[in-house]
Amino acid sequence: MLIGPGGRLGILGGGQLGRMLALAGARLGLDVHIFSDGADSPAARVAAGQIVAPYTDEAALLAFASCVECVTFEFENVPAHSAQLLRDAGMCIRPNPLCLAASQDRLEEKRFLNALGIPTAPFAPVDGPGDLAEALAEIGLPAILKTRRLGYDGKGQARIAAPADAEAALASLHGAKAILEGHVPFLREVSLIAARGADGGFAAYDLSENTHENGVLVKSVCPAASPPEVQARAGIYARRLAEDLDYVGVFAIEFFELADGRLLANEWAPRVHNSGHWTADACRTGQFEQHVRAVCGWPLGDPVRLRDAKMHNLLGSDAAAWASWAGQPDARLWLYGKREARAGRKMGHVTVLGADPQLTAKSAE
Amino acid sequence: MLIGPGGRLGILGGGQLGRMLALAGARLGLDVHIFSDGADSPAARVAAGQIVAPYTDEAALLAFASCVECVTFEFENVPAHSAQLLRDAGMCIRPNPLCLAASQDRLEEKRFLNALGIPTAPFAPVDGPGDLAEALAEIGLPAILKTRRLGYDGKGQARIAAPADAEAALASLHGAKAILEGHVPFLREVSLIAARGADGGFAAYDLSENTHENGVLVKSVCPAASPPEVQARAGIYARRLAEDLDYVGVFAIEFFELADGRLLANEWAPRVHNSGHWTADACRTGQFEQHVRAVCGWPLGDPVRLRDAKMHNLLGSDAAAWASWAGQPDARLWLYGKREARAGRKMGHVTVLGADPQLTAKSAE
Repeated sequence: MLIGPGGRLGILGGGQLGRMLALAGARLGLDVHIFSDGADSPAARVAAGQIVAPYTDEAALLAFASCVECVTFEFENVPAHSAQLLRDAGMCIRPNPLCLAASQDRLEEKRFLNALGIPTAPFAPVDGPGDLAEALAEIGLPAILKTRRLGYDGKGQARIAAPADAEAALASLHGAKAILEGHVPFLREVSLIAARGADGGFAAYDLSENTHENGVLVKSVCPAASPPEVQARAGIYARRLAEDLDYVGVFAIEFFELADGRLLANEWAPRVHNSGHWTADACRTGQFEQHVRAVCGWPLGDPVRLRDAKMHNLLGSDAAAWASWAGQPDARLWLYGKREARAGRKMGHVTVLGADPQLTAKSAE
Repeated sequence: MLIGPGGRLGILGGGQLGRMLALAGARLGLDVHIFSDGADSPAARVAAGQIVAPYTDEAALLAFASCVECVTFEFENVPAHSAQLLRDAGMCIRPNPLCLAASQDRLEEKRFLNALGIPTAPFAPVDGPGDLAEALAEIGLPAILKTRRLGYDGKGQARIAAPADAEAALASLHGAKAILEGHVPFLREVSLIAARGADGGFAAYDLSENTHENGVLVKSVCPAASPPEVQARAGIYARRLAEDLDYVGVFAIEFFELADGRLLANEWAPRVHNSGHWTADACRTGQFEQHVRAVCGWPLGDPVRLRDAKMHNLLGSDAAAWASWAGQPDARLWLYGKREARAGRKMGHVTVLGADPQLTAKSAE
């Protein structure tokens, strides 16, 4: 399926990722339509059309898909059943909904990664209170107890540093099925953004180095300090994952980089990713355009990085400093149009670009 | 008037310039609303809201302006009366509607430029058939007869190379009031895109060199071959013009550059301009973001050019080659979402960027 200029691309999800995808699609002459469970969403305000309905409303989903030529999604918590419904109805949905099952559940995700030879930290399932003691005995301390599903930005996680923490950690998950993950000492957190085209083409961006606070990404810096063989290894893992799933679109893998150069995958996301926002300002083709190209059946664009970049998330009241960022010549400001700046909410981001080689050359003349 | 993120910006006009302004505004967190005289306009399909009505519908204009915090326009043929109506009603409209009178009528435009000490080719009014002989005697041959109003992209123009052409030229204008312009031999056609902020800040881009075919821009190349003193002179003229009008926003001046370095202004446009499209891909701040910043009362962005650029317009069926352009790594493709590729219609453009200094440095290592 090739969706050319003038074609209609549908996106499930109305947040900032959908908004930035819609802006990239518009530049390429596409009409982008948004399916969101809330009215007045950031993405719908830059789109040609929208449907507001729950993500489980099958009739609405089918009506939406029949209005567009291809459907994609901006978040991995689209109900897998809803995505599969469109697939089964013969609609074009990219990437393949199979990727949702392999990313929505932390236990399935880690088993999937390990089965592909992509290492992770040690883990054990905790289906109920009775399983925790055995899991702790296997994994050791410190460890992190996480809900298997619907966790993001550090939600649904509890750290267990000492045996006495176990009961409170379990209680904080309110009976949800969980996974216990071992803590492995690491040098840094890095992530790889990559894309696979409908023609099987593959393109990976440079690794970025990420800083989280309270489980939320606050900064991504590119390039990471990782040596070239680590970059190459990340690319090999990403390509293997994409080919296994016959994946079409952009995706992200977050890794722990160990002192000996090993990479342990922490999680992967079948979508454009916060740690890849810098690509839109620093690369020939940013991740949003790349995803649109992939799902529309276009050739992938060149992911080469032209500049060093530091991306800072603007969380909650951080966005109030927009005017200061707007006055900084080497900063590129992105704001998402969210109405309320709740504490910790992703309101925007700013990419500070490294020295411009051409300007540097001029000033050295 | 400062319109911050979350604020509402209105644009009169729904074409590609409005579309690219809307995309730039969305990146900065604004809600952009479009007033257009046609449904399904390219700009409205990326905007938060729209009103469809004639540009002379005063009630619709007032309703539109009352929904937004500031109104701007993407084309200079907004009826000056309509723009003034909003001003008189106390609405924020930027740039100042006075600029329309100084740009809609070719005769007024040239008198305005000359009054500021900005030279033009010689010209004479041709209010009726009886005036042409005298005008020709004054201006000499070759000359171009142009309608005073509503001409664009070479429409409403007729070249007079020999006395025998005069009658046909006059007939082609169907009785419209006209202006006869002398032809001055020139080295090249160049244009300057510049901006003035609400705080009086001024920023000019590098001159681009333009190629027209049949009166339509087909290519803009930056940098132009013009020497530095010509660039400086263009900037002086632009700043003078902007300050005289207390102008806020982006504007363009097209010049003929003569062999002795003189610049004759051909026309100016109180808006973002086709010959400035390259700025969005090659500069730290593109003309669309710059205009949004200016009219919203933000500080101007840095206009510095980071790359050489060649912008090619995709006219009519040219846009059918989109897939070939999409496969070229150094090309940035923009398509406008127009439904019909009529002959000569501006369907999109592509910016081919010059060698990336950082990549060049890498390959030289």
